[in-house]
Amino acid sequence: MRTSYAIGVDVGGTRIAAGLVERKGRIVKDAKALTPKGGPFAVVDAVIDLAAQVSAGVHQGEISGVGIGLPAQIDFARQSVEFCTNLPLAGVDVRALVMSRSKYQVTIDNDGNLAALGESRYGAARGVRDFIMITLGTGVGGGMFVAGEPYRGSRGLGAEVGHMVIQLDGPACPCGGTGHIESYLGRAALALKGREIAATFKGRAILEAAGGDIDTVTAEDVIKASLSGDEPATRILMDAGVILGRSLVGLVNLLNPQMVVVGGGIGEACPFIIERAAEMIADEALAGRRDVTVVQAELGNDAGILGAACLAFDEYDSREGLHR
Amino acid sequence: MRTSYAIGVDVGGTRIAAGLVERKGRIVKDAKALTPKGGPFAVVDAVIDLAAQVSAGVHQGEISGVGIGLPAQIDFARQSVEFCTNLPLAGVDVRALVMSRSKYQVTIDNDGNLAALGESRYGAARGVRDFIMITLGTGVGGGMFVAGEPYRGSRGLGAEVGHMVIQLDGPACPCGGTGHIESYLGRAALALKGREIAATFKGRAILEAAGGDIDTVTAEDVIKASLSGDEPATRILMDAGVILGRSLVGLVNLLNPQMVVVGGGIGEACPFIIERAAEMIADEALAGRRDVTVVQAELGNDAGILGAACLAFDEYDSREGLHR
Repeated sequence: MRTSYAIGVDVGGTRIAAGLVERKGRIVKDAKALTPKGGPFAVVDAVIDLAAQVSAGVHQGEISGVGIGLPAQIDFARQSVEFCTNLPLAGVDVRALVMSRSKYQVTIDNDGNLAALGESRYGAARGVRDFIMITLGTGVGGGMFVAGEPYRGSRGLGAEVGHMVIQLDGPACPCGGTGHIESYLGRAALALKGREIAATFKGRAILEAAGGDIDTVTAEDVIKASLSGDEPATRILMDAGVILGRSLVGLVNLLNPQMVVVGGGIGEACPFIIERAAEMIADEALAGRRDVTVVQAELGNDAGILGAACLAFDEYDSREGLHR
Repeated sequence: MRTSYAIGVDVGGTRIAAGLVERKGRIVKDAKALTPKGGPFAVVDAVIDLAAQVSAGVHQGEISGVGIGLPAQIDFARQSVEFCTNLPLAGVDVRALVMSRSKYQVTIDNDGNLAALGESRYGAARGVRDFIMITLGTGVGGGMFVAGEPYRGSRGLGAEVGHMVIQLDGPACPCGGTGHIESYLGRAALALKGREIAATFKGRAILEAAGGDIDTVTAEDVIKASLSGDEPATRILMDAGVILGRSLVGLVNLLNPQMVVVGGGIGEACPFIIERAAEMIADEALAGRRDVTVVQAELGNDAGILGAACLAFDEYDSREGLHR
């Protein structure tokens, strides 16, 4: 039987969001909670609680299952959490724990993969078989689609777009590496640039946006100052656009995708970062690869819920032998 | 009927090599010629001539067809040469021209893809479904295998491993871009480093290897000096190993391959470049991705012929509905 709904759960470092999603991608009910700090079981409890909230009153047979996106490296075939930097979930069998206490089939995946899956079904990449998604947020994440399917790699750990090396002698990355895309374009890197400028006479607008305290300058303060017309703040973000552009030139040369989708909070707040990157690809990529379309993601904050719900629909359909 | 042979032709910027190849990967007859400088038809003539030489005396029905590897960006599905830097073949229908004057089916592909195909069937990557091949030669090329198949990308142009950006403000690359892997590890880049050292008091051994003329120092002279125990030459190559390592860390993070195969003339002459890169991946790649195997290619100079023959076998088998 073709079900009507799936439950998508988006687990982030600071917040968990769940939604009851229709097949056509409408979120009919949603719920949020702060991510509990009390260890893995508290996180699992919160997921179960939110899933129950959004599905209350809906007949079980109408729901395909639960999809859960985690900020972790996940071996998809084994459904195991291999590594997780921001939450204590490594080695925790999240899928089994949630399944044992809910009525539904559960499937987990990396949040970047699910954002890409969501965009491919409901967003900017509908009908696009080969694309790269890069999400600019606290971390730089993303996913890749190859021939209409998420790229998973040999161990199922998928595409970590943010941890490509773009500078041989580059700065430290939160992952422990150096010179990665994330070490230039993550929130922490942009905030650091903002603080450097805020400490100079050019940084008045950024300092004001942060309420006068240099130590609290965030990436969002830089964006706020730029939106109010501040030139030094805009310069930081234009430089970020150039770095994004250089990074994507390499990816486009390597992979010859049809489309690049840029999402995440920073990407959404700063369309001109994306425009700058698109110009650079058109100028610098290898001949024959320059016609790649570079677009902003369309699903915004809902990307995680929608991608996770997609996964649950797909898993249900595959179990039931239905074709999508 | 299952054929016994295929003809593999490897077209390079300076040399064309052809071989009659058995299904198990043995080259039973080969022939070489300098690449003619007289325009596209001269190149096609040379290919036809070499193919005829190696297949002389073998019954037509025993030969699957001709595979041709070109140093070009090729739209594989259309079998068209889209871009070619070193030979005047862009827009030339090499496949049709060769087919019109030989008895065989002809298939063309990028030389990097074919080197990877050859290694996957007969060489270091036998039985490996997800791997990256990088070839260090005059250019830096390569290919990617995903789930047992060559990665082709949206326009069939495939994986240009050598044109990933590894330095935001890096030097010019022969392709017109900047900061690419090839701009650090191509023969021209290594020769330039050699010349810089040869111009100083530390460069005696390199200068000697080049016959005393700084302007003629080649990458091979640097390797020769290093093999004779010269420390400054060895330093250049160790630095190249570090750059290769940093490049591969990014690729391994992005793609989570099972194996990386390093080939090409430079890679083969300097196994310690590969060892250094392997150490760096083991240290620097994201957790869960470090167990990738990094190996030297096994097919050496025969990689091009063997990969091209593989392609001809595969195309024949696919036409005839045979499974490999």
